[in-house]
Order: sequence, then C-alpha cells, then structure tokens
Amino acid sequence: MIGALEAGGTKMVCAIFSNEGELIERVSYPTETPKDVMPKIIDFFKGFPELKAIGVGSFGPIGVNKDIGTFGYITTTPKLAWQHFNLYGTLKDALNLPIAWTTDVNAAAYGELRQGAAQDVKNCIYLTVGTGVGGGVVVNENVVEGFAHPETGHMLLRKHEDDYYEGFCPFHDNCVESLAAGPAIEGRWGKKAIELADQAEVWELEADYLAQALYNYYVTLSSERFILGGGVMKQSQLFPLIREKFEQLNNGYLELPALDSFIVPPLLGDNAGITGCYELAKDLLEEAVEN
Amino acid sequence: MIGALEAGGTKMVCAIFSNEGELIERVSYPTETPKDVMPKIIDFFKGFPELKAIGVGSFGPIGVNKDIGTFGYITTTPKLAWQHFNLYGTLKDALNLPIAWTTDVNAAAYGELRQGAAQDVKNCIYLTVGTGVGGGVVVNENVVEGFAHPETGHMLLRKHEDDYYEGFCPFHDNCVESLAAGPAIEGRWGKKAIELADQAEVWELEADYLAQALYNYYVTLSSERFILGGGVMKQSQLFPLIREKFEQLNNGYLELPALDSFIVPPLLGDNAGITGCYELAKDLLEEAVEN
Repeated sequence: MIGALEAGGTKMVCAIFSNEGELIERVSYPTETPKDVMPKIIDFFKGFPELKAIGVGSFGPIGVNKDIGTFGYITTTPKLAWQHFNLYGTLKDALNLPIAWTTDVNAAAYGELRQGAAQDVKNCIYLTVGTGVGGGVVVNENVVEGFAHPETGHMLLRKHEDDYYEGFCPFHDNCVESLAAGPAIEGRWGKKAIELADQAEVWELEADYLAQALYNYYVTLSSERFILGGGVMKQSQLFPLIREKFEQLNNGYLELPALDSFIVPPLLGDNAGITGCYELAKDLLEEAVEN
Repeated sequence: MIGALEAGGTKMVCAIFSNEGELIERVSYPTETPKDVMPKIIDFFKGFPELKAIGVGSFGPIGVNKDIGTFGYITTTPKLAWQHFNLYGTLKDALNLPIAWTTDVNAAAYGELRQGAAQDVKNCIYLTVGTGVGGGVVVNENVVEGFAHPETGHMLLRKHEDDYYEGFCPFHDNCVESLAAGPAIEGRWGKKAIELADQAEVWELEADYLAQALYNYYVTLSSERFILGGGVMKQSQLFPLIREKFEQLNNGYLELPALDSFIVPPLLGDNAGITGCYELAKDLLEEAVEN
C-alpha cells in the first residue's frame, strides 16, 4: 500500500492506494494548526501497517532543497501556526517510511501527467487560479525543483493600459496572482467572480492576464499542455478566450500545439493532488529498488 | 573520439574530442549556404574514422520533437538558404553515426553546466544577448525540449513607462529580444552598445529588461544559475545592475541564491557550445550502452 497526503491551506487530504494504484480510503481534516491536525494524520497512516511509502504535496512555500536547512519545512506561509513547521520531519519521525515531498501544485501537475489531462505528454504545467495563483511544473516527466520550487503565480506581466486596479500581492503589483486571482477580480470590479459571470469585459481582461502568463511559461519551457483549475476557472468561458489571447500574443511566431487540447481543464478534479502524491511515492520506491 | 558541431548563424564550428574529453581539433567555416558548407563539414568529420558519435547544437528554430515531421530540420529561420534544411538527416546519411541534436543555446547551457559556470548545480539558463536574445535551459541536468524548444528571447515584459522605443521583433513589441538585444539598444539610442558604454541610463534600462526576463524564468523554474553571454554582455557593468534590479523585482518575496554567484558570465567562452555538444554526444553513447 502507498499513502498520500495533500496538505492544503484549508484541509488535509489523506489517502491510501493499493499496490495496483486503486484508491482504497480517503479522509480529510481541517488544516487548523499542526498541534490539532498532525496527530490525526499520523493516526490515520498508522492504521495501515502495510504502508510502504507516503507521497506528500504541501501548501507552501516549502523547503525542497536538501542542501539548505529548510528542507521539509513549510517556511514563510502567512498561516502563522504553520510557519517554519517541519512537516516532512514530523511525518518521518512518526512513521519511519520513505516520503516523497513536493508542493501541492507539483503533485497535482504530476497526477494530471500520469493519470489525467496530460497522460499523453511529458511536459505540462498545472495552474490553479483561485484565492491565489499557483502552479506545478513537470519537465520530461519529472516535477521541477531547483534552488527552491517554482512560484509561477509571481510571473510578472504587462498591466493592461485601462486597468487601474493596483494589485493585491504585497510583493508585486503586476504578477499574475496580483492581477488575476479571485481577490483581484473582486478588488477590481467590486463583486465576486461568480456574480460577474455575464460581464464580458471581466473575462476579456482575466483571459489577457492568464494568456500572458501562459505565453511566458511557454517560451521558457515549450510545455506541451497547460491545465488550468481552481475556483476562477469554473468560469469555463475563460478557456476559449485564453486560447484566443494566447494565439494573439504569439502573433504567428511559434508553432503551437492544437489549442483546444493545449489549454485545458483538469481531468482528475479533487483527486489530482493525492494521485500525484501516490505516483511520486511509487517512483520513490521504484528508484530505491533500482539503486 | 567524439565530434561536435556548433552550427551558428555566422560560422560552423567543428571539433573533435578524445574519449577522455580533450579537445583535439577545432575548425570553423563560414555558414553561407548548405550547398557550400555541408561538404566541408562532412569531409572534416570523415577525416576521423574513430568517431563514435556527434553532438550538434544548431541555430534555429529547429525541429526537436520526434513526433513531428520537422525533427532534425532548421525550420523558419530568416536565413533563406537554410529554411527547412534537414541538417540532422544530412549528417546522419553522410556519417551514419549516433547524433545528439539540440539548439546551439541548449548546447551552450549544457556545456556550462558540465564544465563551466554551472558545474556545481543541476539547473541553469544560458542567455545570449547579442543581435538577438536566445537561451538554453537545463533542468535537473537535462536540456529542456517540449513541444518544441525554449524560445526564451520572446519572454514578454512590462515596457518601461519612459521608453518610447517600439521594439524590433516583428512578432512582439515587448519581448526581451525586442527591447534589449543589440539592435534595440542601437534603435533606441542611435548608437551601438559599445559607443554608449559610459551612458548610465542606457544600462539602467537594459538591466531592468534583462532582470524582468530573468525573474520570470526564475518563478517558472527556480533555476540555480543564470549565465549571461553574447556581445551586449561584454558591457560588464550590466552584471551588478541586473543583480540589483532582480533583487528589487523580488522585493523580499522569494529566498534567492547569493546574487554574485547566481547571475554570472560564462566560463567557457567560445567553447561553451562545442563542449555541450561533446557532452550530449557522450550521454547518448552512455544511454545506448545502458539500454
């Protein structure tokens, strides 16, 4: 059996998969504080003595670089109770199992690559557009980590000349999170995204910003697929608009994949994260056997 | 022995390395047309019957996706004689050797990673800023290719509000090539970069655009090192300015590597490309042995 933990900002999803990859059990607990929730998570996994490994995809920022003292920690999150909490180490100490460790969005990207909307390719980006913007990056079938992990929500954009909204990211007035996440829509137009569904200018502008971000990821990586999820993307009229703006930005320069199958919604829905965690833990076990 | 061909827009550099990686021979021919130069290149390599493989890094755009008919071709280059020329296939037919095939800038990035300014890390971007802007991308010790190859010179930027220069890229008025390559400097200020060395405002603006591009690559990949070469970067006053602007753009958000060893010049100089070609061909031979 293989365990999966999607450690999200609002809930902790714990799951158990069979060796054949079947989802056997799935529970979730409110994220609250480490003191409240960690014992529940540990008890849950201890209930499965056949577990061979666990995959963890965590909200961030997290430490992923083994050469730096913050490996395994949730670092500078605004959730005070979780700041500088050693999530990896706490699980390792309690469960003594191999643990695959990455960001929640990297796990979701990997889940979609292995079993979802990017099964037929090797390179994808999973972007979630909700209360913030975050993205997971897969290159050549591996999740990307470097000095730290991708922070695709902070891609800097050209602000639209008619857009007087000042952005809500405390660090960047023109990053995609600052201009296109849910709070930006509400801040700019005075209503929530869901109440603006029939306002064409809202989605034109939103699509423009998201297309700029995708174009910049594309020139960097030549990704084969962009998977867009999160609350804002429930406005599915965005998909054709983003494709159209992407093509306009390209202006005939680069050869592109067929747009309808290039910029797409997720296939795995709420299970993208735990599926990716399972797949990463399985890879870890396979690597251990090979070495 | 292993061969290397750096197919550049102005010259074709052919090299021979010993099995131990020593550079034994290095010649170059003007790029001219395929009809002129291909026989010279082929004759050169045929002079070394002990060759076991060749690595090729080519100017582009080139086809790198084996699922598409353009694999191995130089595709939509403005150099008419080279448009839709099957460089890989021509070499393969003439020499019948294993050939590693990627872009010139990917090869240079890989050369710097294996033997140059990024030897101590696994993730780097090599950006050349000259008559155009091009970049090679290495993630987890592999050159990046996806649907096509990276086109990092076309990263879209926020234009500076005081900058009235309209850009020279025929496709994008605000990509880094359009705003920061040599012709942009000359177009904006009316003189070549080298004649503007003492004009502080020229380099402030140049550093601002290059830092924007680097920041956007960084949020996508968390690269551990940026290596900046090419004619414009001979203005070495740019390095401290770019580091400073990069830090300003980050605005305290992301933890960064120490800036002095993060944004750096190349170490291999004119040999970055052929070194990368050699290393890629060596990898190809090693993979063949493993499989």
